[in-house]
Amino acid sequence: MLFSKPTVYDDLEKKKNLAVLWFSSLQDRLCRIFEQLEVDLDGPFSSYVPGQFERSPWEKGKGLQGGGVMSILRGRVFEKAAIQTSTVFGEFSAEFRKEILGAEQDPRYWASGISLIAHPQSPHVPSVHMNTRMIVTTKHWFGGCADLTPMLHERRKKDDLDTLVFQKAMRYTCERHRDVADYESFRKWCDQYFFLPHRREHRGTGGIFYDLLCSSEEKGGWFADFSFTRDLGRAFSIIYPHIVRKNFNKRWSDKDREEQLIQRGRYAEFNLLYDRGTLFGLKTGGNIEAILASLPPVVYWS
Amino acid sequence: MLFSKPTVYDDLEKKKNLAVLWFSSLQDRLCRIFEQLEVDLDGPFSSYVPGQFERSPWEKGKGLQGGGVMSILRGRVFEKAAIQTSTVFGEFSAEFRKEILGAEQDPRYWASGISLIAHPQSPHVPSVHMNTRMIVTTKHWFGGCADLTPMLHERRKKDDLDTLVFQKAMRYTCERHRDVADYESFRKWCDQYFFLPHRREHRGTGGIFYDLLCSSEEKGGWFADFSFTRDLGRAFSIIYPHIVRKNFNKRWSDKDREEQLIQRGRYAEFNLLYDRGTLFGLKTGGNIEAILASLPPVVYWS
Repeated sequence: MLFSKPTVYDDLEKKKNLAVLWFSSLQDRLCRIFEQLEVDLDGPFSSYVPGQFERSPWEKGKGLQGGGVMSILRGRVFEKAAIQTSTVFGEFSAEFRKEILGAEQDPRYWASGISLIAHPQSPHVPSVHMNTRMIVTTKHWFGGCADLTPMLHERRKKDDLDTLVFQKAMRYTCERHRDVADYESFRKWCDQYFFLPHRREHRGTGGIFYDLLCSSEEKGGWFADFSFTRDLGRAFSIIYPHIVRKNFNKRWSDKDREEQLIQRGRYAEFNLLYDRGTLFGLKTGGNIEAILASLPPVVYWS
Repeated sequence: MLFSKPTVYDDLEKKKNLAVLWFSSLQDRLCRIFEQLEVDLDGPFSSYVPGQFERSPWEKGKGLQGGGVMSILRGRVFEKAAIQTSTVFGEFSAEFRKEILGAEQDPRYWASGISLIAHPQSPHVPSVHMNTRMIVTTKHWFGGCADLTPMLHERRKKDDLDTLVFQKAMRYTCERHRDVADYESFRKWCDQYFFLPHRREHRGTGGIFYDLLCSSEEKGGWFADFSFTRDLGRAFSIIYPHIVRKNFNKRWSDKDREEQLIQRGRYAEFNLLYDRGTLFGLKTGGNIEAILASLPPVVYWS
């Protein structure tokens, strides 16, 4: 087992490299899976050409502060899907330092991660978001989330079948890594985080959210946290396509579409008003197109 | 001249009442003018029925903390126009007090104002925003703005004719009140305020913005500031309809429409990421529907 021998890879630079490699290979895997979904569609819109990802690498500060790879697909299953990796480094502004663990003593940071957002054409197919990342300041840790956002009112319930199977996949993943991943608290964290206080509404129906994951050596340390993070990516790459396939051939009405576009407005409100990742990116001078690629392609506000 | 005799109306309660009455009568006037524009359309969409405003009064804290009147029109000239008045009072939260002039000593506030946002159907017709308000803490002052947002790239220029006539109307209004209104600084304030730092773009092409206007008695005091605020409303109610009429019968292409919807995305980004009025409303527990009525009805993010 390559990743189970901490003695071989015990320095931080090697850990950073392993994380970058994993995020990149997960991006490739997810892009292939999404393109296959585009090919396999048989219902509404199947007369259109299957979508493919467009990859655009970008650099921050002429490459001196890292960069990333945007992959955007506009297709017949996914009106827009963005699967992106980035690895960036630099120094936090004075104002920002106080808010970040381990940055008060030394403003330097390094961050690498993958982010996926999918806005399907069909109102029957839930939107989804998945993100995992490794952050290094004077401390280092993993964070991430995977959460499901059904668009139709009648399916925005905790006991809806799609939500149940998604939660089950998340639960199993945590349970396989129970030393470092506590499903119940990660599930609650997700509910708390993806919440719009001004509307007293949750953005989606659930998933998991974790941050500042930096387990002790007895529990397996960095390797255990990394292993959990990888398994979350793998579990996601199985369960979400399953949910898409279950729903993507169903017909929908204009009313369903309108409901979906209004629900997307809530999604945009959350991302622009509250999402820490979005605000982090905008404040640290990240790539605007990459940061805002999460916004839905078409939105209604009633 | 009713409003030119300060000796008669020199106490704050009477001033507050006069402001509330003015905002309400301006709302009625603007609603009538916008409905007339709906009737007068002769170009694209003129086969549809002219829109009319729907008025919905609302109360804050069961009326114990004020309330307002939302007026929303969905029509053939205006895809959505919101003209709203509100008068609210209460106490600022501890966190918020420090940010507001005169609230540190005493957290009580009173605020009344009118706000107008119009999102036209035609990409040739600029969107517009106008807002004036009177605020009372231990201090009291007026604030406001009127700014134009052309949607087509080729018309988003300072020397475009629509922008020039709009600016001229704003300039004349300030010049008629030169003791209290400095056009050049109000114009620059507008450019600074309606700016999206993450895109390094202005939201619109210009207008005026003022805040904390509380002129000394030698300059005319509250009455002079109120008089300027009223004239801004009147000037707006003449110049914007003029701009609408100049453009609303022109045909447009799908490409124009797409450009408009993408530009609206910038509008939504500004309001949710930066607009102080929106964040003020959300933080003080205002009416969500009223606060977010400014968001465009349909938006694209590319």
